[in-house]
Parts: sequence; structure tokens; C-alpha cells
Amino acid sequence: MAKEEDSCIFCKILKGQIPSAKIYEDEKVYAFLDIMPVNPGHTLVIPKRHVKDFSEMSKQDMIDVFTAAQKVAKMVVEGVGAEGFNLGMNNGQAAGQAVFHAHLHIMPRFSNDGRRLWKGVRYKESQMDNVRRQIANRK
Amino acid sequence: MAKEEDSCIFCKILKGQIPSAKIYEDEKVYAFLDIMPVNPGHTLVIPKRHVKDFSEMSKQDMIDVFTAAQKVAKMVVEGVGAEGFNLGMNNGQAAGQAVFHAHLHIMPRFSNDGRRLWKGVRYKESQMDNVRRQIANRK
Repeated sequence: MAKEEDSCIFCKILKGQIPSAKIYEDEKVYAFLDIMPVNPGHTLVIPKRHVKDFSEMSKQDMIDVFTAAQKVAKMVVEGVGAEGFNLGMNNGQAAGQAVFHAHLHIMPRFSNDGRRLWKGVRYKESQMDNVRRQIANRK
Repeated sequence: MAKEEDSCIFCKILKGQIPSAKIYEDEKVYAFLDIMPVNPGHTLVIPKRHVKDFSEMSKQDMIDVFTAAQKVAKMVVEGVGAEGFNLGMNNGQAAGQAVFHAHLHIMPRFSNDGRRLWKGVRYKESQMDNVRRQIANRK
């Protein structure tokens, strides 16, 4: 019976079947360099347990991954001499997720490195309150 | 003695001194619409406790914020009929952080909404291993 893990590229990295540039490892978490960095030092932090995305992470997964990410972010920033960093996590194909094993991007940043956050656009009159009600009423 | 919190715009939102479009609230966490959304429904999740950024968050802050974020992300996605979402957290001015009270962006996404992730660039030969060593050796 084939499991989702069997074809998962990050599970293969964890098993050593695919090489990776390891940055950090503990019992629950692994971190390695993204091979297509937005800036050198761009690192992915993943739970060793195969979960699809952020929404599927257990409370323990979150503690493990984000606690490790604090350490790793410090290592990355100091290691490449960055001035800041972005965290990112893409959930679903529409959001740019390419590997369906939850992974947190740590992207070191430098002043004037040319990276621009997505541009926000102000809501039109009354639109904001409509959107708020659509969302807030769902809980 | 003036505290950092006194001039913090998000602390003022929490005190009700500045209006906000509330999406979710619990004892430790508050979520509200970003006034400059990259897509309608773009929500910020913040700890009520004033901490500067991700690196300053305690383990309990992370549990509180990310557990709430799972609920809020589901509400946002369902509320606006999105197909996925990005999580983002900017740390430091060089990374685009504008308000120095930790906040997690939840950005709903739709296929073909025109938003593009930052482009990655492959490392040059040997550069990747140099960067790996610079970072991994710091722990």
C-alpha cells in the first residue's frame, strides 16, 4: 500500500536518499538550504513527521518547528551577515506550495536587496466590513 | 518612564484606541484585517503581549499565535472562498517589518491572482557548500 511519504521528496531527503545541505537537525526537525534561494542562506525548516502543510501540523509539530526555527534564523542571519529575515509558509498550489511536506522558509534579507513584499491595496468603502463579516462569522 | 508599548500602534488597537476590523480574539491572541491587503481577507494575527518580532516570542507565544492562526486561516480561506494561503512574518526593517509588534500575515490566495513568490536563483558551484558551512558551524 503506497503511502504519500513514499513519493515525498523531503521524506527522501530525511532518509538520505536525496542529498541536502544540512544546516540543523534535532530529533523532530531538519533544516537545509533551499537549492533556489531568494538570497544565499535561504533555509527550509521541516518536521521529520510527514504532514502536508501548516493546517495539518499538530500542536507538537508547531512547537518543534517554530522553536527550531528561532535557533536556525539566528544561525542564518549571523552566518550570512543579514540584517533581517522573512518567514514564509505556502499552503496549497494556489499559494505556490510545490512540495506537499510542510516547510517553513527562512529568507535572510539585506537593506536594498531588491526584494519587494507584495503590494497591498486599500479596500473600497464598505468592502472591508463585508469581508470582515464573511470571515468573522464563520467561527 | 515611557515603554515601547506606549507608542505601539498594535498595542493601541488592542486597547481600542485605534479601530480595527476584528476577525478573531482569545485570551492571548487578536486577529484583524490588514488595511492594505494583498488580497481581500488578508489578516494579521498578533500576540496580545507586546513582543518585537518572531525571535522575541516565547514558546508560549508561539503556541498561542500559531494555534490561533490555524483556526483563523481556515476562517479566512472559507470566508473569502480562497484556494490556499501564504503565511508570512517579517523580521527587521530590512525584511519589510513596519510595525515592531510581532504579527503573522495570513494571505488568502487564488489561482492566477497574479501574485508571484520571490524568484530563487541557483547557487554557483561550491558557493552552496560555503554558505552551508558559514551557517551550520554557528550553532
